Amino acid sequence: MRIDIITVLPELLKSPFEASILKRAIDAGLVEVHFHNLRDYTTDNYKSIDDTQFGGGAGMVMMVEPIDKCISALKAERDYDEVIYMTPDGETLKQGIANQLSLKENMIILCGHYKGVDQRVRDHFITREISIGDYVLSGGELGAAVLCDAVIRLIPGVLGNETSALTDSFQDGLLAPPIYTKPRDYKGWKVPELLFGGNFPEIEKWREEQAYLRTKARRPDLLDD
Amino acid sequence: MRIDIITVLPELLKSPFEASILKRAIDAGLVEVHFHNLRDYTTDNYKSIDDTQFGGGAGMVMMVEPIDKCISALKAERDYDEVIYMTPDGETLKQGIANQLSLKENMIILCGHYKGVDQRVRDHFITREISIGDYVLSGGELGAAVLCDAVIRLIPGVLGNETSALTDSFQDGLLAPPIYTKPRDYKGWKVPELLFGGNFPEIEKWREEQAYLRTKARRPDLLDD
Repeated sequence: MRIDIITVLPELLKSPFEASILKRAIDAGLVEVHFHNLRDYTTDNYKSIDDTQFGGGAGMVMMVEPIDKCISALKAERDYDEVIYMTPDGETLKQGIANQLSLKENMIILCGHYKGVDQRVRDHFITREISIGDYVLSGGELGAAVLCDAVIRLIPGVLGNETSALTDSFQDGLLAPPIYTKPRDYKGWKVPELLFGGNFPEIEKWREEQAYLRTKARRPDLLDD
Repeated sequence: MRIDIITVLPELLKSPFEASILKRAIDAGLVEVHFHNLRDYTTDNYKSIDDTQFGGGAGMVMMVEPIDKCISALKAERDYDEVIYMTPDGETLKQGIANQLSLKENMIILCGHYKGVDQRVRDHFITREISIGDYVLSGGELGAAVLCDAVIRLIPGVLGNETSALTDSFQDGLLAPPIYTKPRDYKGWKVPELLFGGNFPEIEKWREEQAYLRTKARRPDLLDD
């Protein structure tokens, strides 16, 4: 998989891709991630990428021309399955979308900043608009990092133990059950006895029950789906 | 505001806090963010912070003791309004939660990693569990960065133009309307004429209509709330 991220703040994105799972996936050659600084595609001396809104109002708008230049340059090199725009009014990211995207070859991710991009970018270049949740961030960069992490960890070979991702919350429509590790007793707080018996069918039944009860208590909406 | 982030991967969190809005807020003294490496609170030679699950199963579990030590050390220094655990089965982050948290003084954010933390941590130390969305990430660090960004940008004085945050998506229950900037005509793609007239009441009306139509098309659930 190849991911091209277009941003005005490539330095903001650095560390998440240089640590942990994402670094491991990149080092193993399972994914290539390239950052493109939008200012490299400007034509004026000020390297302007934004301007004021037509019709007035607070906040700057990212101009269509540098984005067109950057996306067109990338598309001249290879085909892309998706050109994704990170925006709070996009389709809300769910595990199912991450699963789908983990099967793609090449993707462009455009990070919005300021008030967002000129609507013409969305109308003419973007194939998919994704929001990571119902809240506003100061830019699309963290959203892009979140999307990449959610997708890249699903690529076969990225996680050490492949069954691990399959028992995550959401993969079976339920939240994960409680988990415990050593010590058995910490300051009088005890691990449920049942987990020590080695009776695996019983443990499995308890976990399914707990997952169901937690989902019912916290996220009954997941049970309706 | 003071935020203490407990993590096994402080290096992953670096760059988002060294760029853009978060850096500006920290430099201006409007918020202090401190990272605490959980491995500094371990007692064995291997600096272990995790162990296998009781009852079997894939994935490691973060142990209660180092987390207890770290949180207790912080609490000995000052009072905290919230001890937040980032986890996919927590309460889903919405703009309203970010608004609430932006009024707090001191917060601890614990980042989960591997399969998550021992349930006893959640039972005894955590006051609030937050998920940034219905998808699984390789750790809580990106979630913590997202939460911090959503909260910190709301602190008065952080954004250059304070009206900017108030016209964001979600603040009035609607998605933001389309926005445009120069040029008026790009390769034949034109900005709506109405935005040039200087008739601000008409422009305001058009924007409200567009915001409503976009919300109805994309997120009818927001109109029900």
